[in-house]
Amino acid sequence: MNNFEFKNPTKILFGKGQIENIKNEIPKGAHILMLYGGGSIKQNGIYDNVKIALADFKVEEFGGIPANPEYDVLMNALKIIKEKKITFLLAVGGGSVIDGTKFLSSAALYKGEDPWEILSKPIRTEVGMPFGTVLTLPATGSEMNSGAVITRASLKQKLGMGGPGLFPQFSILDPTVVQSIPKRQLANGITDAFTHVLEQYLTYPIDAALQDRFSESIMQTLIEVAPKVIANPSDYKAASNFMWCCTMALNGLIQKGVPTDWAIHAIGHELTALYGIDHARTLAIIAPSHYMKNFEDKKEKLAQLGQRVFGIHSETTDEIAKKTIVALEGFFHSLDIKTKLSEYTEDYKGTAEIIEKLL
Amino acid sequence: MNNFEFKNPTKILFGKGQIENIKNEIPKGAHILMLYGGGSIKQNGIYDNVKIALADFKVEEFGGIPANPEYDVLMNALKIIKEKKITFLLAVGGGSVIDGTKFLSSAALYKGEDPWEILSKPIRTEVGMPFGTVLTLPATGSEMNSGAVITRASLKQKLGMGGPGLFPQFSILDPTVVQSIPKRQLANGITDAFTHVLEQYLTYPIDAALQDRFSESIMQTLIEVAPKVIANPSDYKAASNFMWCCTMALNGLIQKGVPTDWAIHAIGHELTALYGIDHARTLAIIAPSHYMKNFEDKKEKLAQLGQRVFGIHSETTDEIAKKTIVALEGFFHSLDIKTKLSEYTEDYKGTAEIIEKLL
Repeated sequence: MNNFEFKNPTKILFGKGQIENIKNEIPKGAHILMLYGGGSIKQNGIYDNVKIALADFKVEEFGGIPANPEYDVLMNALKIIKEKKITFLLAVGGGSVIDGTKFLSSAALYKGEDPWEILSKPIRTEVGMPFGTVLTLPATGSEMNSGAVITRASLKQKLGMGGPGLFPQFSILDPTVVQSIPKRQLANGITDAFTHVLEQYLTYPIDAALQDRFSESIMQTLIEVAPKVIANPSDYKAASNFMWCCTMALNGLIQKGVPTDWAIHAIGHELTALYGIDHARTLAIIAPSHYMKNFEDKKEKLAQLGQRVFGIHSETTDEIAKKTIVALEGFFHSLDIKTKLSEYTEDYKGTAEIIEKLL
Repeated sequence: MNNFEFKNPTKILFGKGQIENIKNEIPKGAHILMLYGGGSIKQNGIYDNVKIALADFKVEEFGGIPANPEYDVLMNALKIIKEKKITFLLAVGGGSVIDGTKFLSSAALYKGEDPWEILSKPIRTEVGMPFGTVLTLPATGSEMNSGAVITRASLKQKLGMGGPGLFPQFSILDPTVVQSIPKRQLANGITDAFTHVLEQYLTYPIDAALQDRFSESIMQTLIEVAPKVIANPSDYKAASNFMWCCTMALNGLIQKGVPTDWAIHAIGHELTALYGIDHARTLAIIAPSHYMKNFEDKKEKLAQLGQRVFGIHSETTDEIAKKTIVALEGFFHSLDIKTKLSEYTEDYKGTAEIIEKLL
C-alpha cells in the first residue's frame, strides 16, 4: 500500500426530508446565492422545498448553469456575488452546478487579476467562500470532494481545479430526488459512478486489500441496483443505495494508498469536446478498448474484478480478464448505453489520431 | 436505509515515516502536552521519533496512562494542562491513551465545576482543546472517531463520552509500529476491530447494501491478514491492511443508515470490571452466545455473513446461520483467543445473573 493522506470534512445529511435541515447548516445572517441549472428543480418541487428552508435568510438566485459548466456563464454569477456581497453559496443541482459553484467559491476570494488563472495555472484553492449543496442527480461525487472541471467554450478548453478549500460545508442527499430524473440521466449517472471506481481500481495489484474490496463493494452494489433504479426510480431502497454509491465512488476514500488511472476520463473529455457525446457515454465507449489495449498491465486486476464482482470463473487469468471486459461492456449495454463511437457519429474515422495529438 | 448524518474531519497521515510530518500539522507556537502509556514507546523508538518531530515546539510530557484510562490519573494530567497553559495535546499510544486524551481535550475547556460531569451527566463536547494522535496499537478506532470510554476505579464506573469537538485534528498511522506489538495484543486488536464491525452489521436487513458490503470487506480483510500479522508483525503489507481495517471499523462510516447493537460491548465491559479480562477477549466470550441467544432476530444477517465472508453454503438460512456462529468462534480460536468464561476464571458461576442486574 502506498503512503497517503486523507481528510474529508464535508458533512452529509442523507435521507428523506433532509432539505429542511439546510437552515441549521448555514451561518445565521448569511447572504446566500442559490445556484442551479436549467430549471428542472422548479418542476420537481426541490426549488420550493429549498426556498422554504431558506425562509430566514436573504437569498439571491442564479439559474442557467449548463452541463459542462461554462466559464463565461459563471463569470456573470461572480458579478452578482461581488455586487450583492454574497457570503454563502448554495448549489442545487448535479455535478455541473456543484462544480460551477466550486469555481465561484474560489473565484469569489481570489486575489489575482483574472479568475481564469485558477484554472489555467492552475491555482490550488486553500480557502474558498463557504458553500453547501443539495444534490439532485447522483453521478459525479462532486458533493463530497474538493475537485471541479470547468469548460470555456471560446478557448475550447475543459480544465480541472481543486484544493482543500473546496469541500462543501454540507451536502444534502435526499434519494427521493431520483424519482424525477429521466432514464437517460440515470443510466449516465450509474455509468459515471461505476467508471469512477474503475479508474481508481483497475490498475495493478498493490496489496491494498481493503481499498480493493471497498471498490468492489461499490461496483457490485451499482450492478445490483441499476436495473431497479432504471425500472422504477421511485424505488427508495434502490435509489438510496444508488445515491450513496455515487458519493462513495469519488470522495477520496477508495483512491487512498493505491495507484489510479484516469486515462478513460482524459480521452472521454475529448470525445465530448469533439462530438458533444454525454460525458458518461464517452467513458463507456473508451473503457473496454482501453482495457483491451492495456491488457498485459491490467489483466490481474481485470481478473480480480471478474471473479469477485461479475462471478466469472475460468481456467486462466487471461481468460477471466478477457471475459471481464466482455461483462463490463454487457453491463453498459444493460443500461442502454452504446459502447461504440460509430453508434454515436458517422464521422468517427481518424478520431483516435486527433485525440492522440490533443493529449 | 435509515436517514443519517455523517461528518468526520480527522486528517489521516498513513504510512512509513509519517511521524516526522507531525510538525506540519500542529499550529506554530503551540505548547504541547505529549501523553503516553506505560513507556513501551521508549523501547520501540516511537518516543524518540516523536520528540525529533517536535523539536521546534515547547513540549511537556505525561506518561503512565493505564489500559482502561483512569480518571484519577487523568486529573493529574489536567493539572499540568492548566498550570503550564498547554494549548495542544498529542496522544502517542493506543486506544486508552487516545481516549484519555479526548477526556482531557474536553476537560481542559470545561466551564463547569467538576469535570466528572462530562462523563456522569454526560455532557456532549462541542469544542475541545485541539489534539492529534500517533497510533501505536491498531484496535479501537479511537484515532478517527469522536468517542471515548473512561474508567473511575474508586466508583467502579466505566463511562462513555463524545461529541463533534473530540475528533483528532490528525492521526499518524504508521504500520511499522505493528512490528513491536506483542502477539497477545495483536490478537486482541484484531478481535476488537472485528467485533466493532459485528456490532454495526449483525442486526437485521435494512437494505443498506453498500454499508453491508463495506462491513464484510473489513471482516474479510481482517480474516485474511490476521494469520500473517500474528506470524510476522514485520510484514508491512499485512500490517498496513490490519491497521487501516481497525480505523475503518469504527470511524462512523459503516454505521451510517443502519441499526447497531453494541450489547456485546455492554456485557463485555462488565466482564472486564468483574474479572479483569482483556476487553477484546470479553467480546470473544460474549459474541457467540449473544448470537445464539438472539438467533431468530439475527439469523438473516448471520447467514449473509456466513455466505459472503466465511464462504459457508448449506440448505437453509438457519443452517448457514448456525455454522456462521461456529466459524466465528473458530476465527477467535485461530487467534489463540479463548471463548469460554470458564477458561478465564474458575469463579464464573452466577456471572450472567450479576451482569443482568448491572445492565
